[in-house]
Amino acid sequence: MDYRIEKDTMGEVKVSSDKLWGAQTERSKNNFKIGAPGSMPLEIVYGFAYLKKAAAFTNCELGVLPVEKRDYIAQVCDEILAGKHDDQFPLVIWQTGSGTQSNMNLNEVIANRAHQLAGKTIGEGEKTLNPNDDVNKSQSSNDTFPTGMHIAAYKKVVQVTLPGLKKLRNTLKKKSEEFKGVVKIGRTHFMDATPLTLGQEFSGYVAQLDYGIRALENTLPHLSELALGGTAVGTGLNTPKGYSKRVAEFIAKFTDLPFTSAPNKFEALASHDALVESHGALKQLAVALNKIANDIRMLASGPRSGIGEINIPANEPGSSIMPGKVNPTQCEALTMVCAQVMGNDVAISVGGMQGQFELNVFKPVMAANFLQSAQLIGDACSSFDEHCAQGIEPNYQRIKEHLDNSLMLVTALNTKIGYYKAAEIANTAHTNGTTLKEEAVNLGYVTKEEFDEWVRPEEMVGGLK
Amino acid sequence: MDYRIEKDTMGEVKVSSDKLWGAQTERSKNNFKIGAPGSMPLEIVYGFAYLKKAAAFTNCELGVLPVEKRDYIAQVCDEILAGKHDDQFPLVIWQTGSGTQSNMNLNEVIANRAHQLAGKTIGEGEKTLNPNDDVNKSQSSNDTFPTGMHIAAYKKVVQVTLPGLKKLRNTLKKKSEEFKGVVKIGRTHFMDATPLTLGQEFSGYVAQLDYGIRALENTLPHLSELALGGTAVGTGLNTPKGYSKRVAEFIAKFTDLPFTSAPNKFEALASHDALVESHGALKQLAVALNKIANDIRMLASGPRSGIGEINIPANEPGSSIMPGKVNPTQCEALTMVCAQVMGNDVAISVGGMQGQFELNVFKPVMAANFLQSAQLIGDACSSFDEHCAQGIEPNYQRIKEHLDNSLMLVTALNTKIGYYKAAEIANTAHTNGTTLKEEAVNLGYVTKEEFDEWVRPEEMVGGLK
Amino acid sequence: MDYRIEKDTMGEVKVSSDKLWGAQTERSKNNFKIGAPGSMPLEIVYGFAYLKKAAAFTNCELGVLPVEKRDYIAQVCDEILAGKHDDQFPLVIWQTGSGTQSNMNLNEVIANRAHQLAGKTIGEGEKTLNPNDDVNKSQSSNDTFPTGMHIAAYKKVVQVTLPGLKKLRNTLKKKSEEFKGVVKIGRTHFMDATPLTLGQEFSGYVAQLDYGIRALENTLPHLSELALGGTAVGTGLNTPKGYSKRVAEFIAKFTDLPFTSAPNKFEALASHDALVESHGALKQLAVALNKIANDIRMLASGPRSGIGEINIPANEPGSSIMPGKVNPTQCEALTMVCAQVMGNDVAISVGGMQGQFELNVFKPVMAANFLQSAQLIGDACSSFDEHCAQGIEPNYQRIKEHLDNSLMLVTALNTKIGYYKAAEIANTAHTNGTTLKEEAVNLGYVTKEEFDEWVRPEEMVGGLK
Amino acid sequence: MDYRIEKDTMGEVKVSSDKLWGAQTERSKNNFKIGAPGSMPLEIVYGFAYLKKAAAFTNCELGVLPVEKRDYIAQVCDEILAGKHDDQFPLVIWQTGSGTQSNMNLNEVIANRAHQLAGKTIGEGEKTLNPNDDVNKSQSSNDTFPTGMHIAAYKKVVQVTLPGLKKLRNTLKKKSEEFKGVVKIGRTHFMDATPLTLGQEFSGYVAQLDYGIRALENTLPHLSELALGGTAVGTGLNTPKGYSKRVAEFIAKFTDLPFTSAPNKFEALASHDALVESHGALKQLAVALNKIANDIRMLASGPRSGIGEINIPANEPGSSIMPGKVNPTQCEALTMVCAQVMGNDVAISVGGMQGQFELNVFKPVMAANFLQSAQLIGDACSSFDEHCAQGIEPNYQRIKEHLDNSLMLVTALNTKIGYYKAAEIANTAHTNGTTLKEEAVNLGYVTKEEFDEWVRPEEMVGGLK
Repeated sequence: MDYRIEKDTMGEVKVSSDKLWGAQTERSKNNFKIGAPGSMPLEIVYGFAYLKKAAAFTNCELGVLPVEKRDYIAQVCDEILAGKHDDQFPLVIWQTGSGTQSNMNLNEVIANRAHQLAGKTIGEGEKTLNPNDDVNKSQSSNDTFPTGMHIAAYKKVVQVTLPGLKKLRNTLKKKSEEFKGVVKIGRTHFMDATPLTLGQEFSGYVAQLDYGIRALENTLPHLSELALGGTAVGTGLNTPKGYSKRVAEFIAKFTDLPFTSAPNKFEALASHDALVESHGALKQLAVALNKIANDIRMLASGPRSGIGEINIPANEPGSSIMPGKVNPTQCEALTMVCAQVMGNDVAISVGGMQGQFELNVFKPVMAANFLQSAQLIGDACSSFDEHCAQGIEPNYQRIKEHLDNSLMLVTALNTKIGYYKAAEIANTAHTNGTTLKEEAVNLGYVTKEEFDEWVRPEEMVGGLK
Repeated sequence: MDYRIEKDTMGEVKVSSDKLWGAQTERSKNNFKIGAPGSMPLEIVYGFAYLKKAAAFTNCELGVLPVEKRDYIAQVCDEILAGKHDDQFPLVIWQTGSGTQSNMNLNEVIANRAHQLAGKTIGEGEKTLNPNDDVNKSQSSNDTFPTGMHIAAYKKVVQVTLPGLKKLRNTLKKKSEEFKGVVKIGRTHFMDATPLTLGQEFSGYVAQLDYGIRALENTLPHLSELALGGTAVGTGLNTPKGYSKRVAEFIAKFTDLPFTSAPNKFEALASHDALVESHGALKQLAVALNKIANDIRMLASGPRSGIGEINIPANEPGSSIMPGKVNPTQCEALTMVCAQVMGNDVAISVGGMQGQFELNVFKPVMAANFLQSAQLIGDACSSFDEHCAQGIEPNYQRIKEHLDNSLMLVTALNTKIGYYKAAEIANTAHTNGTTLKEEAVNLGYVTKEEFDEWVRPEEMVGGLK
Repeated sequence: MDYRIEKDTMGEVKVSSDKLWGAQTERSKNNFKIGAPGSMPLEIVYGFAYLKKAAAFTNCELGVLPVEKRDYIAQVCDEILAGKHDDQFPLVIWQTGSGTQSNMNLNEVIANRAHQLAGKTIGEGEKTLNPNDDVNKSQSSNDTFPTGMHIAAYKKVVQVTLPGLKKLRNTLKKKSEEFKGVVKIGRTHFMDATPLTLGQEFSGYVAQLDYGIRALENTLPHLSELALGGTAVGTGLNTPKGYSKRVAEFIAKFTDLPFTSAPNKFEALASHDALVESHGALKQLAVALNKIANDIRMLASGPRSGIGEINIPANEPGSSIMPGKVNPTQCEALTMVCAQVMGNDVAISVGGMQGQFELNVFKPVMAANFLQSAQLIGDACSSFDEHCAQGIEPNYQRIKEHLDNSLMLVTALNTKIGYYKAAEIANTAHTNGTTLKEEAVNLGYVTKEEFDEWVRPEEMVGGLK
Repeated sequence: MDYRIEKDTMGEVKVSSDKLWGAQTERSKNNFKIGAPGSMPLEIVYGFAYLKKAAAFTNCELGVLPVEKRDYIAQVCDEILAGKHDDQFPLVIWQTGSGTQSNMNLNEVIANRAHQLAGKTIGEGEKTLNPNDDVNKSQSSNDTFPTGMHIAAYKKVVQVTLPGLKKLRNTLKKKSEEFKGVVKIGRTHFMDATPLTLGQEFSGYVAQLDYGIRALENTLPHLSELALGGTAVGTGLNTPKGYSKRVAEFIAKFTDLPFTSAPNKFEALASHDALVESHGALKQLAVALNKIANDIRMLASGPRSGIGEINIPANEPGSSIMPGKVNPTQCEALTMVCAQVMGNDVAISVGGMQGQFELNVFKPVMAANFLQSAQLIGDACSSFDEHCAQGIEPNYQRIKEHLDNSLMLVTALNTKIGYYKAAEIANTAHTNGTTLKEEAVNLGYVTKEEFDEWVRPEEMVGGLK
């Protein structure tokens, strides 16, 4: 390996010549060989790029960083955000719990890349930027990492999760309206029950997603608050006056998202309840989506020996051994995502509850789980929308068969002949394998005409009064 | 046993003569011998009492129930709410997942008790009220149980959880202000760090509780929505026109709480995301409280070989074998509550995700876990507040020792002499077991006077700029 | 209230005259008003009674306690185990995390009751037994509480959980054999698949329970190890020589269960991985039972518009509004229990992971959750067995209809005509709503005779080769 | 893009010319754009390679596959296992829940690569191997995927998890022996308690790991059982006689691990309790490791204002702002892993509980979470061992200070002067800030000589009797 020598306060380290990072990144790479390399999400790296640039602008504006250094920092951050240095961030989630090493990875890459931009060779000549004194100026890992993770989490929620959810929600809403005249058997306890329309059934799904989306949006204000300016323990030591507010404004400007400075920096470093809070809403959505996907899976079951009241698109051959079988694969992918999100919620909570004194040191694991959940829910909703929900159609014949056979329409007679006689009719038809009408007339409780007038499924679904 | 015969659609059942319940309650008692008897929370029973009374008033107003029957129902419900029939609800959580049997327990007790109030003997003479046709009129288990559980949950949150939380929050706020001048060592990674004030440290706890309280309050609108009027599958079959809205108004009036009718009854029966949502906030609070209680436990550790920066009240002898030892027992009780709430969150989510078609049949387990968490957080906060937080006092001597010994004050020199020289001073003092000042001067980087002027802990905590 | 004065090292406390407990119990009652009173499980109290008696016998045998005191202690413990003093243990789970106060509750009740047995009035005359010096001799809360919880947990598992599980397992095994000739449609992805027998389907449930039972039994050795003899920090300070081993022998003798002395007392006080381990197996069983109960719920669904391949017993009227409907209520109770156990597992793990140094202070919450799970699984299996599993019968007509209609029998042709032609037949029948045989012949791939010879469901289930 | 046309039963699909996969893989790629591409763990792919080769050998031996085809299959599988085709498996976890598409990915890659090995161009000429009829012969996704995941999981546990755990366990055991003479203050409730040795403290950690390792090893038999031979629903349809047993033997031979054929294939397809069971043990280990890492973090805290009784290696500069500070970063990485494993356990359980009828369709999510946990625990233990545990040294000076200052040594007087007098001494010293000896003598309860004789910390730790 062709290498150069990099130094930090502990001494010298060899770094491969083609890499932009420095001593501390290299140490972390060697000290934390846990799981796949490079597992620290790139979204966090990009969050750092925004904040490093914003810090440089703020430091410059407040007179503690020269314009030239600001511009070098900004230029490298822009390159990072353009995806040009993705391979320069080799660290893992399972490093120090403050994410210090990823902060240093950014500081080192920015400083070394700036040196290149200044036309020099890394490791030679006077440093263009000092990773600690310039790139990390007015910052600490303890406030940058939570800032980076809030930027990443907020962006993911508004750019992936919510759009995916809303697309699916809108499709289900459309279906709910299309299906508003399709009267079908209801099911409670997984048993036949009184009728409703397929549109009403789907309206419940829409309502679940509406509540979930609202719950998620309720959490955005907390997530939009940034720790930056708290530095090491929350006091803002070594930051120039006015720094916190201004740096948040720059981040808001660069990301075009409504970030603000956290009013209490001690909370922002020592706890990550904002992630716990937002992920709580993601988990609620997982609970809702699991119910919806399960219903659709079961409604589409068959083709001949299941419920079979809806048809879903056939996107792929279903089985390697059973020809002609098409499976609810999008439901399966979505419910697997829900299981993952349920688990991630526990991982995040277990991390969140263990902050100590001025710092929570479960930052990377909390951030990684959050970003995974937010991505998966958004993607899985989009996928489910496009490849399943949009193509859902009623199986009218099957719906009619179930409705006509149902014993539960007897409920319509409750108010006419009382609960006990109605029950007797249903029980007799159940025992004899006959229809309600036959037995109702046989038992002499109603005439044929009364039955036809009183038992009208389409009137049993008549909306809420 | 002295007994009478009660009947339902399946036939006859013997019920002890001194009990007010009927056939279906007795069947449930016999069919579900799971865990301790009577585990269905009384709060649910009371929630039912409110809704049964409200249904009677609505039914009467809408012309489907005579005034006399309304008044019997109302009178028994008032007795139930006064706690006079607590022993008439013997059923367990682990019954049918719709809570049907608890609904029938209420219907039966109300009908039989009304018969007594009418001066008759239970089981003799014409029934004063029919449990199904009168007490359950315009209702189904499927909409009553979720209504009962929302009433119970909402009441618990606003009457127990939030008051307990706010009491503790206010005490911590007061302490935060009292301690605002107490400069102390900060700790990050559980290691000595730059200073902050004890007041700042406590302000982080206040912020956590403020966010948590806001998160919990954000969930109240969903929790205030009632399923009543949806009847069996959400369509409102067999309810008179205008029923849903009116019955929610009566419940709001009787409870003096802002309940409303759920806009989508299908969602309100088939999913219980409102409980998932609110409990998500309770879990966030558990995460926060665990951090706070842990910090206080550790800050109070010692008396001689721990951190020892605060004193907490001694409420009991600490140990049966070690005299003189006083333990952070309130912290322990609170963190045990937090562990329970973390578990309950999973139980609720697992129940919530498994609704099928028109009904979620995990209602009792979801409600019971919710009520336990809400009660425990409220009570534990009150207890922690009264027996611990209010009595917290700084251990000034210990705080000063830690501050004076600290190596981390060197950070104050970063902006004066640069990161690397500051690190050298700290490292040298660390190696030699000496003070920063000694080594700073020895190394020739600063004079004594400069050190005293530059390294001033009280100026390192100067608030966020 | 009529009261007497009790004293401890902190001073005087008033205790109601009719209570046997002393100062420390009274203090705990007042200091921990969290949740319902008396929530500390009685099983723990009984576990303590066994160990206090065993400690007295051991202390006596080793010469540090007179025979007379031993016999007083033993006599009261026997009374406690006979259930005579259940109302003397008013403390809650949410007390000190070491359970010290419950240990003192036992010490105080035993001492005061012994005083009565000696013919004296509590609070008057020389103490018959000193709670600390006699009843707690050679003990600490730190080793007694985990001993009490292991005794309680082990007893519950072998006396409630395993018997319930085995009863259900045996019934399912019997059904599996009864149903071994019932050929039915299989379902994968909730879609029609190749056939199997109902007996084979049930054999999978039996296998799940067999694995779960084995997993649970694998954990019993760890659970049988007792902390007693470790005293305060695990070193066994203040215990006579030979104490640990002997006291475990006495406990084994008194409980008639194979308890032993934990080989490492430090682990036994500071961590409760034995509970984590055993509850992991309970959770595995919850996972298995949830699958089984869900399958049975769905197989029994209908009566007309569901799967309907089995009939389950009708134990109660199913619905307060829908006559004739019978619900899978035992499945619902069981799956609710499973949800609870899933939650309890997290509560126990969260408690277990937070031990610090020489003590885990989440003992009561861990023990309470464990005991609840173990009780609920045992009871729910017994209930499900008696009221559901034993009564399961095939619905032969429905099973035959599903089988005859199935398209998936085409798989039998794979080896005869190849995958692609088989798929074509199935797809054509699916499109045309016809049978496989019709289309197979129409497409000219097989003759009628070949079809009948090759597609024989009863030969497609022929057991594993 | 340069492409070729691939076909399946649904029609034609374009595939990039440089890829070995076929139509079904391409469809899955397009239909499941959920999360990062290629997330299906390579370990699963390798598990499949073993089983495809074993199936080919078995099919050949049993006369249903020619030797030439067997050898092509085996040759490609060997290439896959050598890592030569890692980029040919682009599918995600979030596909169909049976993993069918990953099974087809293997089938297609093997068939196309064999075509190349036969000297032909993919898509041209007669197929060398048919993906379904040859490569998938005697198999179904439903039995191959669980087989692949058991192979992957078992290998990971025995090759990564257990070695990592045992390395750490052995280091802690060595430390425990080295430190057996180091008497130090004990801590219970995070408060000073009676002394023990540092070796005893560490012996508790060793015991935790020993129990956890045993628990994990207890689960290996279940995990070693393979579903292969069950085909679509567990009946073994379309497999030659003797296939199940023989194919497991070939897998055992090729992997050199003791795999066997699952005795009940219905269980093996429809439930994945083996993963639930083994991961339960991983979670127990996470609980244990969290306690151990936390203790070490706290014991090493300081350097001046913490506990500071041990020193841990300084592997990197601790903070970007605070010079001279070295953090317990390995503890942090390990506890983050523990949080992840706690979450993964819930994800796996939630997946495991939702199997339906003959198939559990949460296979990929369960497998992926399992493999992550097993890898992370193994790696993190190795990392913690190498970079932290091996370098732990007592801070003798600090240990002595804490011990000498302690009030808890008073416990040694309990058996000499009784509990109450001992408590009085401790309380007095506590109040006056003096030593036990001073006050013991002042109060006249003991002489100086008695104190020195009776209060000897080194005799208070004398091992379990």
